[in-house]
Amino acid sequence: MDKVINSLKEALKAAGIRNGSRLSFHHHMRNGDYVLNATLAAADELGVKDLHINASAVFPIHEPLVDLMHRGVVTGLDCNYLSGPVAQAISHGILERPVTFRTHGGRPADIASGQSPIDIAIVAAPTCDNMGNLTGKLGPSQCGSLGYAMADAQYADKVIAVTDNLMPHPLPEFSIPETQVDYVVVMDKIGDPKGIVSGTTQITRDPVGLLMAQYATSLIEASPYFKNGMSFQTGAGGASLATASFLKERMLAQNIKGSYGMGGITSYMVDMLEAGCFEALVDVQCFDLDAVRSIRTNPKHREVSALHYAAPQPVVASSLVDSLDIVILGATEMDRNFNVNVHTDSQGVIMGGSGGHSDTAAGAKLAMIIAPLTRARMPLILDQVNCISTPGNTIDVLVTQYGIAINPKRDDLIKAFSNAKLPLRSIEELQAKAESIVGKPKLLPNTGRVVGEVRYRNGDIISELRAVE
Amino acid sequence: MDKVINSLKEALKAAGIRNGSRLSFHHHMRNGDYVLNATLAAADELGVKDLHINASAVFPIHEPLVDLMHRGVVTGLDCNYLSGPVAQAISHGILERPVTFRTHGGRPADIASGQSPIDIAIVAAPTCDNMGNLTGKLGPSQCGSLGYAMADAQYADKVIAVTDNLMPHPLPEFSIPETQVDYVVVMDKIGDPKGIVSGTTQITRDPVGLLMAQYATSLIEASPYFKNGMSFQTGAGGASLATASFLKERMLAQNIKGSYGMGGITSYMVDMLEAGCFEALVDVQCFDLDAVRSIRTNPKHREVSALHYAAPQPVVASSLVDSLDIVILGATEMDRNFNVNVHTDSQGVIMGGSGGHSDTAAGAKLAMIIAPLTRARMPLILDQVNCISTPGNTIDVLVTQYGIAINPKRDDLIKAFSNAKLPLRSIEELQAKAESIVGKPKLLPNTGRVVGEVRYRNGDIISELRAVE
Repeated sequence: MDKVINSLKEALKAAGIRNGSRLSFHHHMRNGDYVLNATLAAADELGVKDLHINASAVFPIHEPLVDLMHRGVVTGLDCNYLSGPVAQAISHGILERPVTFRTHGGRPADIASGQSPIDIAIVAAPTCDNMGNLTGKLGPSQCGSLGYAMADAQYADKVIAVTDNLMPHPLPEFSIPETQVDYVVVMDKIGDPKGIVSGTTQITRDPVGLLMAQYATSLIEASPYFKNGMSFQTGAGGASLATASFLKERMLAQNIKGSYGMGGITSYMVDMLEAGCFEALVDVQCFDLDAVRSIRTNPKHREVSALHYAAPQPVVASSLVDSLDIVILGATEMDRNFNVNVHTDSQGVIMGGSGGHSDTAAGAKLAMIIAPLTRARMPLILDQVNCISTPGNTIDVLVTQYGIAINPKRDDLIKAFSNAKLPLRSIEELQAKAESIVGKPKLLPNTGRVVGEVRYRNGDIISELRAVE
Repeated sequence: MDKVINSLKEALKAAGIRNGSRLSFHHHMRNGDYVLNATLAAADELGVKDLHINASAVFPIHEPLVDLMHRGVVTGLDCNYLSGPVAQAISHGILERPVTFRTHGGRPADIASGQSPIDIAIVAAPTCDNMGNLTGKLGPSQCGSLGYAMADAQYADKVIAVTDNLMPHPLPEFSIPETQVDYVVVMDKIGDPKGIVSGTTQITRDPVGLLMAQYATSLIEASPYFKNGMSFQTGAGGASLATASFLKERMLAQNIKGSYGMGGITSYMVDMLEAGCFEALVDVQCFDLDAVRSIRTNPKHREVSALHYAAPQPVVASSLVDSLDIVILGATEMDRNFNVNVHTDSQGVIMGGSGGHSDTAAGAKLAMIIAPLTRARMPLILDQVNCISTPGNTIDVLVTQYGIAINPKRDDLIKAFSNAKLPLRSIEELQAKAESIVGKPKLLPNTGRVVGEVRYRNGDIISELRAVE
């Protein structure tokens, strides 16, 4: 018995692909992923139409999707993050059905609960044996964690592993077991490992970013959560990483031993683990090659599934976001109720998505946004965000270069920070400041047809995205 | 948020225990397990009746079950292996409903498919954090693999982890994640690690056993499966372990590099891994403390779930038994069709069960029984076994001290072994030899009511066990 099949086309046929099939993909290869495009090219050659794609994220490299959408090969899309040409095409109305946007926790929860069934999951497998035991930690295209692919592999009707590093059975380092894998396909290259490096994984050198990072670090230090056992997540933006770097120094100086660091993991979080700031890293996705090395070699750096990372109750008994103390997040827009938009730009064009934004904000005791008060002549704070990605009642603090706003519902934090010599402002003051610099923008028209629905982690639709001209 | 609950009683109440609840247990603590008894004592104090227990195995230490069965607290039992006082009580008709016997692969498959639902799974957790991430590899009661508990934890409505080593969250070495665990209970001791050592985990010194081991080793060496990449499983009986020890020497002498060793793992298999005989050990259960040390420290020694070990298709895409080359198994009785009984003794009293016997026999290319031709004045080979545990069409060879019988359906093996200077006999010749020594036993009466049903790995009932006087 052997599951290796000669080509993606044959594997898709064996898996029963047909018009309307629901195919899933994961994004650990990020903008270096070759598997989604190769799979859909094979499906196209088979002549199937009306495919429904559930991809944890879509990147610029996935531009061929645009043509497939034009030709009706792909007519449905679910994702947690959407950028590049496909995002623009969606915003311009290429699909009749709205895209369903989920969160990194909501997506696997909906897969596990049956809300979002998958016919065929395609797993990019940097190393795989001929029976389908596979891992992301080894091989020339190693990407580290395969956390986002785990629910797909577990719950899909059929699973195709695509690898460029076939190893003898059984692979003891498997992350996904052969019990879940039906077919194995070997490609020359499943991706470009350099592409897994997220756009921004370097500390900012911009003085504005560094100032915000200093504010954020001081806030954390003044908060009741800066103590032994603290857990921490940050994204990969330049100011967020600078905060991680500053925080490391403060933790070491004050001998604070944290419990865990989490999220898409970068070298900065690996540094913190190795310096003893945390007992563990829990990793649903590696953002750079240092993180890949660490997860392969350090038992304290542990791969976790997206369900384990961020899924909501009652689909899971608990997930790691439920125990999170501090998270640092970004924003493209906010409003005075602290609602955050990370889906669209100031013109209403899709350029991102929730990812783990709203999951971690809901779980963390201190959910902090770091964002410059203006960008490209647009203010950060609007009367009303063009999309609610993360509800304001889960956001505690906004840090800008012009001051810090605490969500009024957090009396306790306002008290805790009152002696910290930090430029505390109301969010209205910050909005006025931004408008004094760049003026008040016109509201975007809200008349286009709905091209995207944003589902909160519990499944509720909390925003609709509209077509732009 | 914290899942720690003060007592087993409170946890069972919180999990919704009621009359008729289906509770599951696993047997990694083997005859040192304190958790099953403590849990059922707590349930008894709560006054519930008519509980249905699904335990992967029941040992002599679980004798308190007998009283609970007498009093109607426990009225149903499913298991893969049953020994000691509970086995005897079942054979004497203590339960009205027959016990359902499954295999180590069939049990998790039936749990996963919904055939055998579980209301509350109780997991003995040698180390656990306060959110339920848990492992068997660490802590004073460490037992190594938790492979048999994994399907239970994944599919049960509610899961209670019982630990004597509560650690800070999050435990990066988890084998079962907090997503699956609802409650955590701390006990003084969950078991006696010495009790995990299986009854027979030492090489035999008995000349009969050593002779059979030599025959078995020579057969393997003469078989087409003795080559690079070979995979191998053996049980923990003295002659089986002697075979492993002899095989190791032959593999090293001939520079044969196997792929994997499997099964309940003993120090002899660990030796083979460390000597380079295998690339990997895949371990659903540790049979001794050397195996526990190895699985904790050697990345090539990998914990696998019972689904991954042995579940049948189509519940899983494949399991490790499907790729197994050679397995060495025991038998209490056989018949001329090579059917094997490992459930009952010569009086028809239950004293064991399939475990992985029929799963591995079905998967392995060479399924070999090693058993002495007579035991306690009873012949091994009968006209008809008192219970078909493993169908003869999945057994290839019988090795006894008086000769070796090849299943006639295996022409290829008969040819392969014809030059090996081994005492090949027909199974009829071996039966005649046994009868010449101890005579022909009377058939057991087949009139008692049914107290056990043996389900093959695909769910078919292949035998019924009857009450004895």
